[in-house]
Amino acid sequence: MIILGIDPGFAIVGVGVIQYKGNKFRVIDYYAITTKAGLPLEQRLKMIYDGINDAIQKYKPDFMAIEELFFNNNAKTAIQVGQARGVVLLAAVNHGIGIYEYTPLQVKQSVVGYGRADKSQIQQMTKAILGLNEIPKPDDVADALAIAICHAHSHKMVNLGGRI
Amino acid sequence: MIILGIDPGFAIVGVGVIQYKGNKFRVIDYYAITTKAGLPLEQRLKMIYDGINDAIQKYKPDFMAIEELFFNNNAKTAIQVGQARGVVLLAAVNHGIGIYEYTPLQVKQSVVGYGRADKSQIQQMTKAILGLNEIPKPDDVADALAIAICHAHSHKMVNLGGRI
Repeated sequence: MIILGIDPGFAIVGVGVIQYKGNKFRVIDYYAITTKAGLPLEQRLKMIYDGINDAIQKYKPDFMAIEELFFNNNAKTAIQVGQARGVVLLAAVNHGIGIYEYTPLQVKQSVVGYGRADKSQIQQMTKAILGLNEIPKPDDVADALAIAICHAHSHKMVNLGGRI
Repeated sequence: MIILGIDPGFAIVGVGVIQYKGNKFRVIDYYAITTKAGLPLEQRLKMIYDGINDAIQKYKPDFMAIEELFFNNNAKTAIQVGQARGVVLLAAVNHGIGIYEYTPLQVKQSVVGYGRADKSQIQQMTKAILGLNEIPKPDDVADALAIAICHAHSHKMVNLGGRI
């Protein structure tokens, strides 16, 4: 199966595309969709929407795996990122792609096997699991790949009758 | 000019369509787009997006006027409403419609002439300005019409060289 992992954001959306087949991972592509601060809000949302549409049309993923958002105190940031996340989800549903959401805790447990893993540990494991030569940059892209790995593991467990 | 006023929300999106020509208002339509709580998030976002698309195609507005969001403490709600607002803005930009954002304070000053007006005063003035027989329900729809009125007033002031 092909998994499109997304780390949603307003200025940067991390995109990671992986294939998972017979317990083996293959990296297909990874990159960031970036939107410039000076552009009008709606233009930036359109760039994100078009970018996700392009990724879906190019790689024809079976699933989208996307990070669930948590904010403690900054409601302004929450609205901004919420707006970006809304158009990402819309692009997936417009193509009929199954969407799965994972919390940061689920990603850590799935990729590192340890819910209190730090960012560096997740990135090292992501690199190792996918056989990459270096850790993808920026962090958003590495996060997107980690979310895609999380979905591959979870999906496998569901298929085996296990719990996520 | 035809103005599409939007009160963005996740469960309810208020929609108000008015025409403003030669200092006169005419109500074209007003209603709520509602999404059911039990549906998947992405389906609800698609319903909102499709609903706004339909309104744009049916009424061909010159402008979209939409409320700027403020949240003090509930980041979860901010993310939800942000997602809904994102797909509303996307529908407008996909049709090349100019988008104008107004704060609740601007709407109050524009519709009632008083920034500390309460909800009931705004609704009464909206009803009076548009010559309606009763206050539209739910509140989201009345709010959408008030935002559209705000844009008509502001746009006029801009054209006259005044400040918003």
